[in-house]
Amino acid sequence: MIGARATPRLVFGSSVIPGDRVLPEEVAVALSFNGTTQAVMMATPADLEDFGVGFALTEGIARPEDILSVEVEEVARGCDVQVWLRPEAEARLAARRRVMAGPVGCGLCGIDSIDQALREVPVVAPSAFRMTPAQVLAAVAALPGEQRLHDATRAVHGAAFWNGRVLLAREDVGRHNALDKLVGGMQRQSVPAEGAVVLTSRVSTDMVQKVAMLGAPMIIAVSAPTVAAVELAERAGITLVALAKGDRFEVFTHTDRLTTEDSHVG
Amino acid sequence: MIGARATPRLVFGSSVIPGDRVLPEEVAVALSFNGTTQAVMMATPADLEDFGVGFALTEGIARPEDILSVEVEEVARGCDVQVWLRPEAEARLAARRRVMAGPVGCGLCGIDSIDQALREVPVVAPSAFRMTPAQVLAAVAALPGEQRLHDATRAVHGAAFWNGRVLLAREDVGRHNALDKLVGGMQRQSVPAEGAVVLTSRVSTDMVQKVAMLGAPMIIAVSAPTVAAVELAERAGITLVALAKGDRFEVFTHTDRLTTEDSHVG
Repeated sequence: MIGARATPRLVFGSSVIPGDRVLPEEVAVALSFNGTTQAVMMATPADLEDFGVGFALTEGIARPEDILSVEVEEVARGCDVQVWLRPEAEARLAARRRVMAGPVGCGLCGIDSIDQALREVPVVAPSAFRMTPAQVLAAVAALPGEQRLHDATRAVHGAAFWNGRVLLAREDVGRHNALDKLVGGMQRQSVPAEGAVVLTSRVSTDMVQKVAMLGAPMIIAVSAPTVAAVELAERAGITLVALAKGDRFEVFTHTDRLTTEDSHVG
Repeated sequence: MIGARATPRLVFGSSVIPGDRVLPEEVAVALSFNGTTQAVMMATPADLEDFGVGFALTEGIARPEDILSVEVEEVARGCDVQVWLRPEAEARLAARRRVMAGPVGCGLCGIDSIDQALREVPVVAPSAFRMTPAQVLAAVAALPGEQRLHDATRAVHGAAFWNGRVLLAREDVGRHNALDKLVGGMQRQSVPAEGAVVLTSRVSTDMVQKVAMLGAPMIIAVSAPTVAAVELAERAGITLVALAKGDRFEVFTHTDRLTTEDSHVG
């Protein structure tokens, strides 16, 4: 299976038993735009074309119409994802490179200042998308069925896109990477952003930033958000559902997208 | 409580109930060395002096003897952690800035190439440190008692240092940040690195790199490692214990540090 490998280890329990465990693989992936490496990340070596396209979109490096092609090259100690952009997009890329030429950020893709770390994002377009509580629970319940790598390893994150059913799902050892792969896959398969991004992970501001760049009106996460993530989702017009497990969930922003016909205010 | 704030939300369960949930805070933290910002990260606003010192050490920006002082300044939209290094350390800092002036990495603190992402780390010094299986389980069982922010939010990571008992523990919304805070706190309180780093999180290569820079001979993690993390721990001479929960755990590397007097090979 791509992204997983059996690794020997000793199990210490009531006795000591040798054997193998299937662990997720993690390789160095360079993301290059028009021939220049912009970032290097450790990622699961699957769906790397989607990763390159999604990273370009969610980090504001390119708009969908800027992207001409993407190819993955195996290099000495990892993979190089080569994304090619229209010449007209070069100006945006050059501006971003200037920003990145100074002191650089960490976990924030080269963003070099507090203001850029807290970059404002577009407000999602008005959307008629709504979900009932039963649909929210169904979307969360559908996630495990899409997590083949997690089934094998119990140790990777998943991101899925839901509109009536799961339209696409991606996995990675990193939660940001899983989301970028989902966004790139949606772009490459022309899946419109009308629906909910379903995440196995916690929701930090950078996750909300990426969903806002996608333009999806709703996030459903299994785990908790941060205070700053709630504030950003509020400003971006995104409905943030979190702590969605079993038969309950919590809604932190824009609750109007939850239609409550099969529920009542207690 | 520092790092947590009650946030309004609606709970959807058998009925819809309004109320508050305590969520972790996440603020933009700039890390500056001798007056120049090196990185900006989203982090929990607690123990930021430890964070600055720990980041400097685990990322190879400074050696312990290079660090003169650290102070935290509140700025417009976040915090600036100002670390001051000896003039002799400037050469190392300048070299690192040159590396970072090109295309930059992401989640890897400005590292700009695959080779740097896969940086080799020092092999830990020979150590007489050993643990029995019962001690491993005791160290994991002691972790929840040290996680006050997690108690309040159920949504942050913890890193602790154990030698006979938990000597120090730190928390953060980010697992890398929690580890950096632990390393910085150990340096500032003169806790020697002879013992085990106990983590609530998964173990990726960058976590092993940071522990190797600390020089600790053992990692005990609640969750799983990646294949690359196992390989790096092997080369660095670190005993990697993972999937430590309840009454069992798994050892992936350098099993000789587990003394099995109270167990037997099955």
